[in-house]
Amino acid sequence: MAKNKNAISPARSEDFPAWFQAVVKEAEVAELAHVRGCMVIRPWGYATWELMQRELDREIKRTGAQNAYFPLFIPLSYFEEEAEHVEGFAKEMAVVTHHRLEADPDSPGKLRPRGELAEPLIVRPTSETVIGKSFAKWIDSYRDLPLMINQWANVVRWELRPRVLLRTTEFLWQEGHTAHATEAEAREETTRMLEVYRSFAESTLAIPVLTGEKPAEERFPGAVSSLSIEAMMQDGKALQAGTTHYLGQGFAEAAEIRFLDRDGNRELVHTSSWGVSTRLLGALVMSHSDDDGLRLPPRVAPQQVVVVPILRGDSADAVRAYAEELAAEIGGQRYGNEEVRVIADLRDRESPAKRWEWVRKGVPLILEVGPRDIEQNAVMVRRRDAEEPKGESIARAEIAARVPALLEEIQANYLRIASERLAARTARDIDNLDDFRRWFEGDDGDPDSGGFVRAPWSEAPESAAVFEELKVSVRCIPFDQQLPDGATCVLTGKPATIEAIFARAY
Amino acid sequence: MAKNKNAISPARSEDFPAWFQAVVKEAEVAELAHVRGCMVIRPWGYATWELMQRELDREIKRTGAQNAYFPLFIPLSYFEEEAEHVEGFAKEMAVVTHHRLEADPDSPGKLRPRGELAEPLIVRPTSETVIGKSFAKWIDSYRDLPLMINQWANVVRWELRPRVLLRTTEFLWQEGHTAHATEAEAREETTRMLEVYRSFAESTLAIPVLTGEKPAEERFPGAVSSLSIEAMMQDGKALQAGTTHYLGQGFAEAAEIRFLDRDGNRELVHTSSWGVSTRLLGALVMSHSDDDGLRLPPRVAPQQVVVVPILRGDSADAVRAYAEELAAEIGGQRYGNEEVRVIADLRDRESPAKRWEWVRKGVPLILEVGPRDIEQNAVMVRRRDAEEPKGESIARAEIAARVPALLEEIQANYLRIASERLAARTARDIDNLDDFRRWFEGDDGDPDSGGFVRAPWSEAPESAAVFEELKVSVRCIPFDQQLPDGATCVLTGKPATIEAIFARAY
Repeated sequence: MAKNKNAISPARSEDFPAWFQAVVKEAEVAELAHVRGCMVIRPWGYATWELMQRELDREIKRTGAQNAYFPLFIPLSYFEEEAEHVEGFAKEMAVVTHHRLEADPDSPGKLRPRGELAEPLIVRPTSETVIGKSFAKWIDSYRDLPLMINQWANVVRWELRPRVLLRTTEFLWQEGHTAHATEAEAREETTRMLEVYRSFAESTLAIPVLTGEKPAEERFPGAVSSLSIEAMMQDGKALQAGTTHYLGQGFAEAAEIRFLDRDGNRELVHTSSWGVSTRLLGALVMSHSDDDGLRLPPRVAPQQVVVVPILRGDSADAVRAYAEELAAEIGGQRYGNEEVRVIADLRDRESPAKRWEWVRKGVPLILEVGPRDIEQNAVMVRRRDAEEPKGESIARAEIAARVPALLEEIQANYLRIASERLAARTARDIDNLDDFRRWFEGDDGDPDSGGFVRAPWSEAPESAAVFEELKVSVRCIPFDQQLPDGATCVLTGKPATIEAIFARAY
Repeated sequence: MAKNKNAISPARSEDFPAWFQAVVKEAEVAELAHVRGCMVIRPWGYATWELMQRELDREIKRTGAQNAYFPLFIPLSYFEEEAEHVEGFAKEMAVVTHHRLEADPDSPGKLRPRGELAEPLIVRPTSETVIGKSFAKWIDSYRDLPLMINQWANVVRWELRPRVLLRTTEFLWQEGHTAHATEAEAREETTRMLEVYRSFAESTLAIPVLTGEKPAEERFPGAVSSLSIEAMMQDGKALQAGTTHYLGQGFAEAAEIRFLDRDGNRELVHTSSWGVSTRLLGALVMSHSDDDGLRLPPRVAPQQVVVVPILRGDSADAVRAYAEELAAEIGGQRYGNEEVRVIADLRDRESPAKRWEWVRKGVPLILEVGPRDIEQNAVMVRRRDAEEPKGESIARAEIAARVPALLEEIQANYLRIASERLAARTARDIDNLDDFRRWFEGDDGDPDSGGFVRAPWSEAPESAAVFEELKVSVRCIPFDQQLPDGATCVLTGKPATIEAIFARAY
């Protein structure tokens, strides 16, 4: 198979953001909608999201949380009750002010809003305030705690500069909300869920992540403490892939969520919240894809294997039958505790066009069969993770049984590649501002340079100016602190208080 | 177990609507939210919905449709493009007019909307118009047809008189949207999906339904033809449980969805849409429940079996172990191609309170075990579908293996009861307006009278006055027409053109 020069244009190395957009488009993952700032998640992208959801949903339920559903609309006054929360969200929300449309008598065929609401409704940017009202009703005594609820939903945060999958006005997510009797239990919940996210990112998405606490200025509005998993994209930038928040008693106070403790006192609960979103689809693309398009880890690939028959003339019927039989046999194999997802692509199109479509869409294994393969009792196997596009001929009798192992190799390979990148592009020896500046300035436009800096930090307020100048932020304060005695701050030279991860971020 | 007089109050026979609300509340299915017109679907109700979704989603995918996701917001102008559609929906939509909140300088702590939009956005009441824009982009030639897309989403239709699960401003649903080369194929799609819905309602929800076409005045706004499945609730009223629509070429014309046919002509596609919603949770409640609460068909019961241990004094540890072992053994059984959903309820509460909670929540099988059961090597089994609440003692060695058959009996029993009701309360011999009026007037307030009337109809416009007077409508024109030669209209005495199903409806 000759290398198709036009698979994805531009190449990653030429223009990373444009390459990202092209992969998302060519692989039919998603697209910005005609509706400003909103996106359409196309069937291939949505099927990937469904596989992610299914896996994560099972893990969430395993922790004891239950799914439920709460209103899309939040009365304006709920936001006024939690001051810090308002501060953080007030600038970017969709406001419903009317509940009816009428024919406009002045412009035939035109409509106008009518039925003004006494109180405007906000389309939820997140649901702490509205779920809090239910918690207040449902929680009576310590026997009702912990209360652990999860919601799969759409949320809206107005975006003036939307980017598909990464920053859209509407996106899909899950948001967990829990209430506990003590601070210790609520904090434990945020740690447990962060571990669920970390494990999900690594085992399912093949994306290695750093775990740690967010610095104060990056906290969720209203949170006492925010934890996150941070991934590195192929351009060296960080992407926050999941967050958990200990909310203290602030939201409980605003919504009056109290419980009768064992001693008969009515106390405020401690709450937490946690979420991941369809941004993870963007992370998948930027973590694994190449200049031929998407590369999907087998665990979240809507099709793990596609058989492409080369149909020509007299042999077409025989090849079609060979392909279908092969697909059926592979479909009887199991990978990750379920049947291998496989199709024989019998559509009425040219076989090279079909093959390239599945390459672009990131299918882990593409099997080609033509008259010669039948003669030789073989199958041409193309691994999407291979550097070389030429493929390997495997005996027909062996192929089905080998598929599960091949898929596992590909899954592991994507994680290995991403882990090596994360290690190689995390500088651990930068100890002064000049080198720090050089690291990030050198990053401009070159996708092979730059990355994370792991270094001692003083948390001093004057860091802000450097962050603004270099468009860098502290992504997290990693849990595995390795701050040497007497270390000085990489930015200010002052005594360091912690070790931090610095990076540019999506 | 003595009959608890207060299980659900009022009884079905006293006040059906109030009974419905009480069951929904006591079984913790859902509740109206603080947010006007919206609802909270509680964990027990949501888990039931998830089981329904999973089953239906599989059947939808089996037809070849793929899931995707489209924007929540629809620009006002999209609605202006399809005149009939606007007519039908224009009166009840949530309108977003601003995209920002600001601190109100005149009232400290208060917020006010800012950032007025150039064009208002409508929160989707249904997505034909916005999905049409994507179809226009994705469809190029006949090779792209049929295009079959499904979306699981929330939708909003403003309700001035909300009723939980039946009529709420926001609800959840799936909406299928398909495009075809010919009218015949698009119509075939509406028939195929109606059959998916019928089969789902009967096999999964144990709700028998009538299938037929909606009369013109009950059609979906903009549709050429609407089909529906209609179920009968325990008060004899109809509930439309699912609809499919042949939309002709009207939406295709508005969104410019054209394809190049085999002869090289650019033609408009024919579209269809189809959907069911969380209303089905309301149908489940009103179809099967009794004065003790919810009764869930096993296929959609979040727990199919609950083991309630009677824990007292010295024997508590032994009973707890006996209960856990029993639950584990039952969990190893299979029903409907998956493991039986079972828990041992070891919570720190009184056992009668626990038992009644599971009765109210409609768990098909409640197994009680206490010291005496251990002695006798037995289990007290209470079937939720039994008329008698006393239960049956079954040998410990036999119980696990019998569970699948018991669940299947209960599933079949609910369908049988509902089918008998549908047959018994459908009048087929009413042939004049006086009897027709008597049938529906006698219905008032008495849940054991009234029901459907199946009778010849002339489709004459003067029917409208009778419908308004009696609050009756034509639910559907059943597919299995049995109009006798020379039949006359039950309402007008004119020559009948069709046979119709008349009923009051939710």
